[in-house]
Amino acid sequence: MIFSSSLLESAVNEFAKLPGIGKKTALRLVLHLLKQDEGDVSHFSHTISRMRSEIKFCRNCYNIADADLCNICSNRMRGSEIICVVENIRDVIAIESTQQFNGLYHVLGGIISPLDGVGPDQLTIDALVERVKTGAVKEIIFALNPNIQGDTTIYYIGKKLKDIPVKITTIARGIAFGGELEYADEMTLARSISNRIAVEHYISSGL
Amino acid sequence: MIFSSSLLESAVNEFAKLPGIGKKTALRLVLHLLKQDEGDVSHFSHTISRMRSEIKFCRNCYNIADADLCNICSNRMRGSEIICVVENIRDVIAIESTQQFNGLYHVLGGIISPLDGVGPDQLTIDALVERVKTGAVKEIIFALNPNIQGDTTIYYIGKKLKDIPVKITTIARGIAFGGELEYADEMTLARSISNRIAVEHYISSGL
Repeated sequence: MIFSSSLLESAVNEFAKLPGIGKKTALRLVLHLLKQDEGDVSHFSHTISRMRSEIKFCRNCYNIADADLCNICSNRMRGSEIICVVENIRDVIAIESTQQFNGLYHVLGGIISPLDGVGPDQLTIDALVERVKTGAVKEIIFALNPNIQGDTTIYYIGKKLKDIPVKITTIARGIAFGGELEYADEMTLARSISNRIAVEHYISSGL
Repeated sequence: MIFSSSLLESAVNEFAKLPGIGKKTALRLVLHLLKQDEGDVSHFSHTISRMRSEIKFCRNCYNIADADLCNICSNRMRGSEIICVVENIRDVIAIESTQQFNGLYHVLGGIISPLDGVGPDQLTIDALVERVKTGAVKEIIFALNPNIQGDTTIYYIGKKLKDIPVKITTIARGIAFGGELEYADEMTLARSISNRIAVEHYISSGL
């Protein structure tokens, strides 16, 4: 791409560094910003740079936070007896959007994946064990993606917690709501049969 | 989407204002920036806001420019006898990328489209007529999208220029290189037959 302005070119190059944004999309975004009010664009760039410089990680659960504690950990209406362990912040947002969970979270910052060079030391596992050791936690719910790495992580953390009296559960895996049996993979279908649930319980869950 | 941080939420909302970027994509982009160095993110936002506040429009051709004249208009190696008339800056970039045109441009800033409320007065047509009136221009090439609005614009400007001795041409319309006849629409195919070109000319164009 040949540009008649180096200001335009640098702006396009900056946008094109973002994941999933190619040069053509970057140009479209930049030309859109060029049509906006100068104040709006300056607000855009100020918000981004402020977000990067001021955002913190909650010292309790490692979720993104505006202060030392995130909105969830500092909310006294939430139960601190149940901790939902997730891989990343996106998962917190996904679970919060269901409005079905009223406990706290623990963001691991990834999952154990030797192939990607991610070992237990790079995750916030030790901090999780410390939280559980305080004795205030009654249940840990693992909400990790259902794959080998997720299962490895559950197994590893489960071993670390085995001497602590805490209930350890994982979110149900099975056929997705609205999914079709014939298109489900064998692993999912097999697990959904072996982990079958009583119908009265299914109905009373009210979803 | 429920966020645990208002800084994160504002940044996602800012990105989600961009065309073609939904909330989920915006979140992905913001979380990507959050992983980058603070200096890189501040460079990103500074580049965007500087682009918006410092960029100019070339006073000759209305292309995007860093100074009063764009790189193309101020380049003495380019012929000023041929002006290629385009709808917007993207078209300039597309034609420049072919490296086949060595004249100057004129960016209309849109095309005449009564349905979208765009009349001739909102375009840089008067400025184009002034440029042609100086007598330095020998040919005007219309490189507008081949549709009703493009043809209307060509017709309108053609009438404005009819008393000035200047050659007026339009880019060839026909079957795209690599295209297949059977999938071409009737209009394109009909025009490509009526505007057929001599084979010796086709070969000598060397493309």
